[in-house]
Amino acid sequence: MNIKTNIKRLLQYRFCLSRLKELGFEKVYSYTLSEEAGVSPEQVRKDFSHFGIKGNKKAGYEIDNLIETLDEIFISDEIVNVILVGMGNIGKALSQYKGFKQVNMNIIAAFDIDPSKQIKSFGIPVYPAELIPEMIERYKVEVAIIAVPSLSAQYICDNLISNGIKGIMNFAPVILKVPKGILVNNINLSNELQSIVHCVSKKQRESVK
Amino acid sequence: MNIKTNIKRLLQYRFCLSRLKELGFEKVYSYTLSEEAGVSPEQVRKDFSHFGIKGNKKAGYEIDNLIETLDEIFISDEIVNVILVGMGNIGKALSQYKGFKQVNMNIIAAFDIDPSKQIKSFGIPVYPAELIPEMIERYKVEVAIIAVPSLSAQYICDNLISNGIKGIMNFAPVILKVPKGILVNNINLSNELQSIVHCVSKKQRESVK
Repeated sequence: MNIKTNIKRLLQYRFCLSRLKELGFEKVYSYTLSEEAGVSPEQVRKDFSHFGIKGNKKAGYEIDNLIETLDEIFISDEIVNVILVGMGNIGKALSQYKGFKQVNMNIIAAFDIDPSKQIKSFGIPVYPAELIPEMIERYKVEVAIIAVPSLSAQYICDNLISNGIKGIMNFAPVILKVPKGILVNNINLSNELQSIVHCVSKKQRESVK
Repeated sequence: MNIKTNIKRLLQYRFCLSRLKELGFEKVYSYTLSEEAGVSPEQVRKDFSHFGIKGNKKAGYEIDNLIETLDEIFISDEIVNVILVGMGNIGKALSQYKGFKQVNMNIIAAFDIDPSKQIKSFGIPVYPAELIPEMIERYKVEVAIIAVPSLSAQYICDNLISNGIKGIMNFAPVILKVPKGILVNNINLSNELQSIVHCVSKKQRESVK
């Protein structure tokens, strides 16, 4: 099951609104927000109405109100515990990523099969994979990040799900097979870079024509 | 300007096809591929037809043919040179990410203002930011990755664009302002994780009702 794109768009609006607020704005029009978020103004209004956000097309939306409403939808009052499996380069970078804490998400533990990595790394304890079930239970974890090599990703995924994980952010370049109802968000870094390279070179070819 | 979602979908199909091939499949139906890629079968057929990919709805598509056609669209025969700005945790992880080379994309140089980071790191030379213009020119670079802190991201972005960069993969959690025609692909890790947390807890609430 894939994460719905409308959720991602709403999070993108939330993100743009913070920036607009920082820049001193108090009100925003759907077309300004749409431009910032890279979608159509109709899409912004449609998304807002879908999530019950009311606004005045002519007078614009109060930024503070919008932020408050979106935060009610998205930001949990409680800190959400997340675990991270795989302490390679990507795993290490994620374990130190400050942005997660800013939205109340806390990586409480990381796991790696390599004993040399099983130390406290930048405040996050790194355990052997055998401790995954215990940690999930103890910290009531429902969301995990997979940052292991492709070959072991499905095995780790199955292990996580059988121990209660409901949502996975997956950095391994594989398509994970999951039971119905389990959410996977695949972050394929090569695809992301390739999409830019493709669009840039396509523009180039078109301008030569 | 945002990267079009249809490009990303096609890259996702390409990725799924490799996996299906590895598993020994020779043919694929649009509904199998749609399931793997997390879209509707109609969407797959629509995308294929948009990009001139012909298939037989009843007999399925030959996986090898599909891969070949998609590679003609996406994979450059020549290696594409990319630069990386910012050698913090995310930058370091990206500089060592093997997936880029597999699709002919090569990070030829990285840049960081911190002199202690200006060493050869895992085969990629790290230079001071002053050398950005020279390197872009020398290696005919058009695509860059930004992995600097939020505060300096716009400054770096302006610098890159004024020196000829046409496409940017941005990991800094800011909305970059770019001139028309410049492509930006924002990777917002917090939003990606938050979207899963949100969907998981929403499902939870619904199941309690």
